Amino acid sequence: MCEANAYVIRDGKEELVMEAVDTVEPDNGDLRIVNIFGDQKVLHARIKSLELVNHKIILEEKRVIPGSP
Amino acid sequence: MCEANAYVIRDGKEELVMEAVDTVEPDNGDLRIVNIFGDQKVLHARIKSLELVNHKIILEEKRVIPGSP
Repeated sequence: MCEANAYVIRDGKEELVMEAVDTVEPDNGDLRIVNIFGDQKVLHARIKSLELVNHKIILEEKRVIPGSP
Repeated sequence: MCEANAYVIRDGKEELVMEAVDTVEPDNGDLRIVNIFGDQKVLHARIKSLELVNHKIILEEKRVIPGSP
């Protein structure tokens, strides 16, 4: 299988948020992550980078700017 | 191998931009895509979504807004 693990950068460190990710897609300003088992998470984040041979998806959380949509 | 193919959405259609992609990373406002053979492309785009089991990376081109960085 060719899924990857999703990490979010927090305080400069990679924190694992989901293993065996299949799809990642925008969801009303957020990001919906679904793994091969059908588990879902929605994060206020964007996809920063990919290292597919290393099975890594790196996400970064969006900053919340008051008054922005 | 677990690489994927990168597509960009143009006129509502997926156009293949690179096969066998390993890494995708931000590069000074653009997006640098490198495949397992070491070929590189730089696009003014962002990562929109992933379908890893289908080996798909979907990119969308950023709109160029005059006067914006």
